[in-house]
Amino acid sequence: MTVSNQSGTNFSINAERFWTTIEASAAIGKGPKGGLRRLALDASDAQMRRLFIGWCEEAGYGVTVDKLGNLFARRAGRDDSLAPVLIGSHLDTQAAGGRYDGIVGVLAGLEVLRSLDDLGIETERPIEVVNWTNEEGARFTPPMMASQVFAGRQTLAWALARTDDAGLSVAEALAEHGLAGDAPVGGRTIDSYFELHIEQGPALEAAGMPLGIVTGGYVARGMRIGIEGDNAHSGPTPMHKRQNALVGASMAAVAVDEIGWRFAYLDGKTTIARLEAWPNKPGILSSEATLFVDFRSPDTQTTARMEEQVRAALPEAARRSQCQIKVLEDWTFGGPAFDPDLMELCRRTATRLGVSTLDLMSQAGHDAYHLSHLCPSVLLFTPCVDGISHNEAEETTAADQAPGVTVLLNAVAERAGD
Amino acid sequence: MTVSNQSGTNFSINAERFWTTIEASAAIGKGPKGGLRRLALDASDAQMRRLFIGWCEEAGYGVTVDKLGNLFARRAGRDDSLAPVLIGSHLDTQAAGGRYDGIVGVLAGLEVLRSLDDLGIETERPIEVVNWTNEEGARFTPPMMASQVFAGRQTLAWALARTDDAGLSVAEALAEHGLAGDAPVGGRTIDSYFELHIEQGPALEAAGMPLGIVTGGYVARGMRIGIEGDNAHSGPTPMHKRQNALVGASMAAVAVDEIGWRFAYLDGKTTIARLEAWPNKPGILSSEATLFVDFRSPDTQTTARMEEQVRAALPEAARRSQCQIKVLEDWTFGGPAFDPDLMELCRRTATRLGVSTLDLMSQAGHDAYHLSHLCPSVLLFTPCVDGISHNEAEETTAADQAPGVTVLLNAVAERAGD
Repeated sequence: MTVSNQSGTNFSINAERFWTTIEASAAIGKGPKGGLRRLALDASDAQMRRLFIGWCEEAGYGVTVDKLGNLFARRAGRDDSLAPVLIGSHLDTQAAGGRYDGIVGVLAGLEVLRSLDDLGIETERPIEVVNWTNEEGARFTPPMMASQVFAGRQTLAWALARTDDAGLSVAEALAEHGLAGDAPVGGRTIDSYFELHIEQGPALEAAGMPLGIVTGGYVARGMRIGIEGDNAHSGPTPMHKRQNALVGASMAAVAVDEIGWRFAYLDGKTTIARLEAWPNKPGILSSEATLFVDFRSPDTQTTARMEEQVRAALPEAARRSQCQIKVLEDWTFGGPAFDPDLMELCRRTATRLGVSTLDLMSQAGHDAYHLSHLCPSVLLFTPCVDGISHNEAEETTAADQAPGVTVLLNAVAERAGD
Repeated sequence: MTVSNQSGTNFSINAERFWTTIEASAAIGKGPKGGLRRLALDASDAQMRRLFIGWCEEAGYGVTVDKLGNLFARRAGRDDSLAPVLIGSHLDTQAAGGRYDGIVGVLAGLEVLRSLDDLGIETERPIEVVNWTNEEGARFTPPMMASQVFAGRQTLAWALARTDDAGLSVAEALAEHGLAGDAPVGGRTIDSYFELHIEQGPALEAAGMPLGIVTGGYVARGMRIGIEGDNAHSGPTPMHKRQNALVGASMAAVAVDEIGWRFAYLDGKTTIARLEAWPNKPGILSSEATLFVDFRSPDTQTTARMEEQVRAALPEAARRSQCQIKVLEDWTFGGPAFDPDLMELCRRTATRLGVSTLDLMSQAGHDAYHLSHLCPSVLLFTPCVDGISHNEAEETTAADQAPGVTVLLNAVAERAGD
C-alpha cells in the first residue's frame, strides 16, 4: 500500500550531521592520495561496517545481516507487516577510490531515518537502509555481486565461491572478519528501492543542477576473454613458432580499444579492464592469459554493433598471435530499468522543494539495476566535481549533496506513507 | 699456468651415475606436466641444494656458499694456490621448466669431479663446480643475477634488494631457507669457466651432432617500459579523456611484437615477456603499467636497428593511448664472448674422442656471458628434443648428453693440468 504525503509538508534533513557521517567514513581505509582504499570485506570495510551498525543501533534501528554480509538497518512502520521501502548503496570502494562513491547513498539513507526520528514522523511502511557487499568488484568479480543474488539473479553459492587475487573466496573473506549473518539473501518482498549516488560524470555540474533523475543506463556488456598459447623459451624460438598468450591478449586489447574510438561519436566506449597472464615472466613465453573488457553505449542497437565488432576482431588477434582466443563468459547490465512512478514522485517532490532536476542516463553499473528486477526502483544522481570518480581525487561538498538527500527524505516519506 | 694433457689419454665418465643424479633432481619440485617448477630460493630449490651439497661432501669436495647463495664445490689441485678451473650452471628452473635446462651443466660438473676421482687423476689446478643462484629470473628479475655480481658487473646490495612478485627480497628469500653463506661474492681470480647446457634450440638435433661449440650469443637487449595513465571510472569517462595504462601497455606490446616479425628474415625476434598493471580491476582504468620486452638478432647492427624501431614506436603508442610511456631501464647481453683458445681446446678434445661438433650461436642468456668478462670462458651445447625448452615437455636422453659431458671431462682435465 502506498500512501501519498497528504500534508504536503516539506521535511528537512540535518545536513551537518549527514556530513559528519561522511567525514567519519572518509577516515576509515584512507588511500595514499586523500581518497579511500576500502576493499570489500577487508579490515577497513569491517571497521566501517561496525561504525555504521553502531550508529543504527544507537538510534534504535534493528540491524539484520544476511549470508552475503548485506546489512539492513530497519526503522519500523506503523504496519510493520508491510513490505519495506529500501534505501541503499555500498560502503566499499575501489583500490584507488573516492570518499563519496556509494557511501553518500548509504549514509543518506541513515540520514533519512534519523530525520524522520527528529521530526517525530511515523510511516505506514517500514523503511530499511541497506549496505550491499562488494558493489565495486574491486576485490571480487563481478561488481554488484550481492544485490544480484538478493534480486534472485544469481545463487548464493555462486557468490560465496568467487575468489580474490590471493585466492580467498567470498565465504572465507566473510568469515575472516565475521561479516556474514544468518538471514537468507533476498527471497522477500520489497515495496520499492531508492538509491542516491554521485553522478560520476560531468552533466549535473555542467548544467548547474543539484539532482539527476536517472531514466536508465547505458547498455553495457562485459566479457572474459581467454587466450591460450604455449610456453617456450623467449630466446631461440623463432617468431613463427611463438604462441605468446601475452601477445594475443595485447592484440585483442588494442582491437577492443579501437572499437571504442569507432563508436565514440555515439558516446560508445570500450574498456580494457584487466589483463592476467601466466607465467608472465622474462625468459619464457606465457601460455595463458585472461582479458576482461567491457563496452557500452546509450542504446541497445549500438552496443550490439560494438559486440559484433569485438567478436569479429578476436579471430584476427588469434591468427596474428598464433593463439586460441575465446569469449569464456559475458554479461550485460544497464538499459531502461527504472520505475516511471517513482521517477515522477522524485521529480514532483523536487519541484515542491524548489530543487531543479535533470533527467539523465547512468553510464556505470549500480545495485539499482539488479533491484529493478525485484521491485520498482529509482536512481538519483547528485553532483561531483569534474565528473572525476574511481580516483582518489573524487570530490563534492555538503552543499552539493544536501538538496538530493532532502528530496530523498521527502520522496521516501511519501512512498512509505507519512 | 695451463698444462696441456701430455698423455693424450681419453678419460670416460660414468654415464649411468651421471643420469642417476639427473633423475634425482627431476624428482624435486615437480611441475604438473612432468617438468619442474623449482623457483630460485624456494623450498624445492633448498631441497635440491641440500641434495647436491650432500653428494659433494660425501665425495670430499669442500663446499663454500657465498652471500648470494652461489654454491661452490671444490676438488683440490696439486697446487691449490692456483686459480681454479670453474664448471657451472644453475639448478633453478622456470615456473614451467624442464628437467635439464641448467641442471645438466651443474651435474656434469659434479660428474667430472667424480670421474677424476674414479680415475685417480690429480690436476695441477683446483677445479670448482658452481650452482649460480636465480639464473632463470623466474622469481627475481633479472635472470643471471648472481653470476652478474660474481663477475663484478653489479653490486651485492643491488642483487639482495631485488624482490619477487610477493615483495620478498632476495636477502629475505635467502634467509628463509638459510641459503646464504659467508663467502664474498666474486673478487677472486678464476682461471677459466666451462658451462655445458642443453641447446634449447633445434640445430644440433637437425644436424645430428652431439656437441655444439658456442661461438657467441645473439645480441639481446631487454627493456623495462613504464606506462603512466590515470585512474578513472570505466563507465562515464569518454574515450578522449581515458588514460588507461593497460591500453598503453598493450599498444606498446603489439608494436614491439610487430618489429620482431619485421626482422624475422634476419632471425630477429622480439618477446613480450611480462605485463603488470595497477589496479588492473574492472570498473576502474589502470593508472600504471610496466612492460618487460626483449629483442635479439645474430648481430649487433640488426639488434641496434630493432632497438631504434622499438624506441620510435613508443611515442605513437603513448599518443594513441594518451599515456606517458618511457623506457625505465635497459640491459644488453650476448654478442661475441667466448675464448678462442678454450673453444679450440674443446674442438680438439672432441675430435680426439671422435665426437663431432657444430659451431653455433646461443640465442638465450647464460651465466657464461657474465663470466666471460671475468675470465676465459666457453659454452658447450648438448642436444634437446625439438628445441623445446622453458616448457615442461623439455626432453633429452642420457645417450645424447654423454658425449658432451665426456668432452667436458677431458677438456677440463687438460685445462687444469692432469
